Amino acid sequence: MSGSVSPLAPKSYAEMPPVRGVRMATAAAGIKYKGRTDVLMMVFDEPASVAGVFTRSKCPSAPVDFCRANLPAGRARAVVVNSGNANAFTGKKGRESTAMTAAAAASAVGCSESEVFLASTGVIGEPLDATKFSGVLDGLAVSATDNFWFEAAKAIMTTDTYPKVATRTARIGDVTVRINGIAKGAGMIAPDMATMLSFVVTDADLPAATLQALLSEGVEPTFNAVTVDSDTSTSDTLMLFATGAAKADGQKAISGPSDPALVDFKAALNDLLKDLALQVVRDGEGARKMVAITVEGAESDAAAKRIALSIANSPLVKTAVAGEDANWGRIVMAVGKSGEMADRDRLAIWFGDVRVAVNGERDPDYSEAAASAVMKEEDIAVRVDIGLGSGKATVWTCDLTKEYVEINGDYRS
Amino acid sequence: MSGSVSPLAPKSYAEMPPVRGVRMATAAAGIKYKGRTDVLMMVFDEPASVAGVFTRSKCPSAPVDFCRANLPAGRARAVVVNSGNANAFTGKKGRESTAMTAAAAASAVGCSESEVFLASTGVIGEPLDATKFSGVLDGLAVSATDNFWFEAAKAIMTTDTYPKVATRTARIGDVTVRINGIAKGAGMIAPDMATMLSFVVTDADLPAATLQALLSEGVEPTFNAVTVDSDTSTSDTLMLFATGAAKADGQKAISGPSDPALVDFKAALNDLLKDLALQVVRDGEGARKMVAITVEGAESDAAAKRIALSIANSPLVKTAVAGEDANWGRIVMAVGKSGEMADRDRLAIWFGDVRVAVNGERDPDYSEAAASAVMKEEDIAVRVDIGLGSGKATVWTCDLTKEYVEINGDYRS
Repeated sequence: MSGSVSPLAPKSYAEMPPVRGVRMATAAAGIKYKGRTDVLMMVFDEPASVAGVFTRSKCPSAPVDFCRANLPAGRARAVVVNSGNANAFTGKKGRESTAMTAAAAASAVGCSESEVFLASTGVIGEPLDATKFSGVLDGLAVSATDNFWFEAAKAIMTTDTYPKVATRTARIGDVTVRINGIAKGAGMIAPDMATMLSFVVTDADLPAATLQALLSEGVEPTFNAVTVDSDTSTSDTLMLFATGAAKADGQKAISGPSDPALVDFKAALNDLLKDLALQVVRDGEGARKMVAITVEGAESDAAAKRIALSIANSPLVKTAVAGEDANWGRIVMAVGKSGEMADRDRLAIWFGDVRVAVNGERDPDYSEAAASAVMKEEDIAVRVDIGLGSGKATVWTCDLTKEYVEINGDYRS
Repeated sequence: MSGSVSPLAPKSYAEMPPVRGVRMATAAAGIKYKGRTDVLMMVFDEPASVAGVFTRSKCPSAPVDFCRANLPAGRARAVVVNSGNANAFTGKKGRESTAMTAAAAASAVGCSESEVFLASTGVIGEPLDATKFSGVLDGLAVSATDNFWFEAAKAIMTTDTYPKVATRTARIGDVTVRINGIAKGAGMIAPDMATMLSFVVTDADLPAATLQALLSEGVEPTFNAVTVDSDTSTSDTLMLFATGAAKADGQKAISGPSDPALVDFKAALNDLLKDLALQVVRDGEGARKMVAITVEGAESDAAAKRIALSIANSPLVKTAVAGEDANWGRIVMAVGKSGEMADRDRLAIWFGDVRVAVNGERDPDYSEAAASAVMKEEDIAVRVDIGLGSGKATVWTCDLTKEYVEINGDYRS
């Protein structure tokens, strides 16, 4: 973990009220870290609906394999998360470790192993000794409380410098439901999807298939639109649970993801996902600046996103931002290398509200002072108009600093 | 320019004998740099055959456009290169600048503007004032000498910390021909193709079409297999000239690129291209270590190359190398994110001769000490066996250091 909190951290954290139907507890099992919690258990006393999206890595971790196998049944009673060890590329031992943890969790809450979901984050390739925490799950299942969100967020941190929490409410018909989420992630962050763990719980009453549709749609402009370093983890996991407690308030049954009663819920969920995703970027390893890159005028939204990611992942763009250098030539470079259609002589580029380039050359009214002033801000907006179509996308990234190199030069040791 | 020479620089430079048929001269025009040469002129007194490969950027520089237009005619009498300004994204002014330079060069050597080739390297987006050096070309054309290769290499440097030169000889039938090359490049280096300028001249007698075929084939495993930072420049230019002077020695006419008489020449050319390409990587901005990444057992050679580039361009792999950390988990991550077929449980990974992972987990005989010893070397070989097929490729990169961030945080200013 980094010694100091990111300068981009939130000035204050959201108050996290309980979500009916889920309880949580944490433990300090000493998996890798000393003197801090590193195991989180979530318990659903009644089965919750569950949806998930996972890394697209061809070499996923053992817990990702485990969750994918359980997801089709769509029911969750327990979640166990550990930090400090990713249980990735651990072969047969990795599968033994997930099996032992799932058995212990199922026994602790009195459910089937198919109702358990697991996630691990930390070093890759080290065998994870599940005996370190499988013994504490019985106790956690008993002590778990509903007012523990902030502590839960802290237990899953690795190189994060602050816990990431968000909460929203939404109306489904006449009933108000709540959505709470936590996330962790700071490096090895790239679509698709952003490297991180995130767990979101609502007390709404929603079937698993609907939940999955909402999550798959919501992740695209949020967690799949952030990048710290273009590196995709083996362990990316985003799960959404619906406890159904709002049914007791008279929440009407939902027919499917297109049910008009879900309009407000979808907006609240997507807003929460974006909130968490941006918190991840703002904690990018070594980050000192946050950059929102909007590409418009591309051939399609997908083309716009690929161009935006080409800019966001360019080491030369990111180091220029770190150096507060309004080096828009590197934006041109990154547009050019994206492989997407572009016409040099139609490009226009803005830093903040300052147009620096237009019609394929430096803006006639270019002011170095005005552009440089934008670069000194903590939050920087870059806008590129490709000038060819109506495709548009925004992605978020952070700068590339010496601290990133330092953090990642000796993370494992 | 960086203050000190890369620790990976060659211990000595090749002696660069003349190549019959080409003369060179340099000038200090003060385009951006003070107290050093920044213009190179090459003169072919008899028309040379010419071939070229250029950046695949969709936003190429004005000189790249200019060269592409002249290349089909296949004849070269003059080359003008400047450092300090890339004349890229300079719009109409950029085209005026190439036109003025070409006219001045054509007048200086007494040829058509279609026989002139241009290259510029340096800052993007700043108008290039060609009047700064178009006036000196008359003098350079007169003073150019055939023993000037090392000085030529120095004049085209930007953030390079050392000049890059290489020379070879080859037999075509009974005749010995020479191939000399220079290159520049240190950042914004990525396939395809590696960001750089390189000019190679041989006294062999080869038609332009043959020359182009040899160059296009030779660039794939050499300049197109190196990456410093995944960023592709707007200005990448590699040109190959054949003066034909060896015809006077009785060199036989060549029927085409598959002529058996070219076997030795091809080998020498490819060896020289690889030599120059690796010199570029060894001068990667901030580089302290050189990494050769070989992927074998992939579905195809192309898949192997994409996996190797995914590893080579991973900031997390590159920072681990900088930190001398045998973090093979990040190699797994980069294989997994490449998008190519991989089976986690068949992967094997070596650092040098030390196998660190096999069958999807840490090698049973893994020795941290042995792996760490490899990482302390200046030249590090990483080998990955995907275990699926017979596809194989090698790419070369360097580590990502704090110095890279420093160099690129304030390059423009």
